[in-house]
Amino acid sequence: MPKNVMQEDAEKIMAVAEREALRLGKGLSIAVVDSGGFIVSIRRFDGARPMTPMIALSKAYTSAVMQRPSAMLKPWSNSDPAFFSQVSTMGHFPIVATGGGVTLKRDGEFIGGVGVSGGTPQEDEALAQALLTELGYDTDFAEWAGAKGAADGKH
Amino acid sequence: MPKNVMQEDAEKIMAVAEREALRLGKGLSIAVVDSGGFIVSIRRFDGARPMTPMIALSKAYTSAVMQRPSAMLKPWSNSDPAFFSQVSTMGHFPIVATGGGVTLKRDGEFIGGVGVSGGTPQEDEALAQALLTELGYDTDFAEWAGAKGAADGKH
Amino acid sequence: MPKNVMQEDAEKIMAVAEREALRLGKGLSIAVVDSGGFIVSIRRFDGARPMTPMIALSKAYTSAVMQRPSAMLKPWSNSDPAFFSQVSTMGHFPIVATGGGVTLKRDGEFIGGVGVSGGTPQEDEALAQALLTELGYDTDFAEWAGAKGAADGKH
Amino acid sequence: MPKNVMQEDAEKIMAVAEREALRLGKGLSIAVVDSGGFIVSIRRFDGARPMTPMIALSKAYTSAVMQRPSAMLKPWSNSDPAFFSQVSTMGHFPIVATGGGVTLKRDGEFIGGVGVSGGTPQEDEALAQALLTELGYDTDFAEWAGAKGAADGKH
Repeated sequence: MPKNVMQEDAEKIMAVAEREALRLGKGLSIAVVDSGGFIVSIRRFDGARPMTPMIALSKAYTSAVMQRPSAMLKPWSNSDPAFFSQVSTMGHFPIVATGGGVTLKRDGEFIGGVGVSGGTPQEDEALAQALLTELGYDTDFAEWAGAKGAADGKH
Repeated sequence: MPKNVMQEDAEKIMAVAEREALRLGKGLSIAVVDSGGFIVSIRRFDGARPMTPMIALSKAYTSAVMQRPSAMLKPWSNSDPAFFSQVSTMGHFPIVATGGGVTLKRDGEFIGGVGVSGGTPQEDEALAQALLTELGYDTDFAEWAGAKGAADGKH
Repeated sequence: MPKNVMQEDAEKIMAVAEREALRLGKGLSIAVVDSGGFIVSIRRFDGARPMTPMIALSKAYTSAVMQRPSAMLKPWSNSDPAFFSQVSTMGHFPIVATGGGVTLKRDGEFIGGVGVSGGTPQEDEALAQALLTELGYDTDFAEWAGAKGAADGKH
Repeated sequence: MPKNVMQEDAEKIMAVAEREALRLGKGLSIAVVDSGGFIVSIRRFDGARPMTPMIALSKAYTSAVMQRPSAMLKPWSNSDPAFFSQVSTMGHFPIVATGGGVTLKRDGEFIGGVGVSGGTPQEDEALAQALLTELGYDTDFAEWAGAKGAADGKH
């Protein structure tokens, strides 16, 4: 069982993403990072705007190191925006509370993250979620990282 | 067809801008950048305040690398302000969601950006738009980027 | 003639790089950026260390925006290290004076940059140079930039 | 007597600089700032590399706010490099100890700075000095800013 996403996994993600980008007719960028948030693969498909790879990277990074999809950080960002804005700069790349980023988890193990940028917010999020489903990644994530530990009696 | 805005293009922009600054009786600053957001020309016309060249530069940079006029980013900034404020620092210069910046596009190709600062928001925006029209640049911009491969009928 | 390196170009670069990484038995990362230094493609091939994609990116960025291979900056860095260290932070990504980065130029036009990281300094540099040769990019670069107006016989 | 360099002054500087750039056959960037180091005019002449406007700006800024040509900071940078590297980030733009920047002083009054980038170090410095001479600016500067105050018995 891989501990981290590998090039073979990233290439499968890129193939699905490119197919969907062409189907949507949108210039998209996709970033894949490992469980530590380090870059595995980034592609800016033709037509995608110059900043979209960095935006996709921030979504992938967030989803990997926060161990839940980036959209799940919105309640936290909304309920404590000052603190969240400080946390958002504590990592190697920006930690963002927005759609379009999903955590790569397989057999319960965190192996990386994927970020999508370049479509509407709804398209970015739908594609990110579709990548998980089509490629057989886990899709269950705890609302707060602490919740599982608390339930398990550990932290 | 120029790949990027050149000094000759920038000088034409500056000539129109200076004429309009005198007509309005306002101290304006103008920035012109290439398609990668790098400075081509900046002028702070007499009477313009010290920070206006940097403000104009941020508008020009935004319009070049986001490939649409800076005012078109307002809906994004309004709908997801926390995320937009993070994206705003991901480039070489600040990415700003405000009027007064326009993308330089000719024959469908992105060749740079222009920013205007020093007038009222309405004056900055009107001058930026007038520059495009008077000098024959394209004025149609899409909210979302399109896939080039799809448009070309290949892939 | 492409204005900037496209996905098709980047994929050709990645194919050669992956073949060489396997031949060398080294974990390499490769970054491809456009003429403005924006990411087009980054791949960390299996076995490459976590920081290598960012190192490759800095080499690609440098070679694109400085418009000559990153190793050609060494004399500058050696002769005026304090000044060079300041210039190195003036861009969007670090500007580095080291081997392993080459400028993508075709028919005399700058279209991007490539960076290689993960091998020995000699291997990184040799692979970067081999990419240019095998894929038919220009290999002549001037230490100092020439005035375009003068070359065109106008002004 | 002007307190600060104006557009008319900047245009004279740009005209001489452009003439010399074409004579040298080099792609040069020129920056002119006022006595507070704020941008008055920046031009990247055709052929100059993308980063040269920012490098020229750092030289102009340094010469304006340090009130002596940027090359005159070299002894300080050499004798106390750790402290100088800290000072170099204390301003709005980098303070650099290198050639190619000169202070604009007229009738003993500091009115701005000029920076040149894109040629050899010798060419940048020679052009910056030639601008002062040809356009009638003062060319005498005290080695250390404190020297005049000390001589006057004030500080």
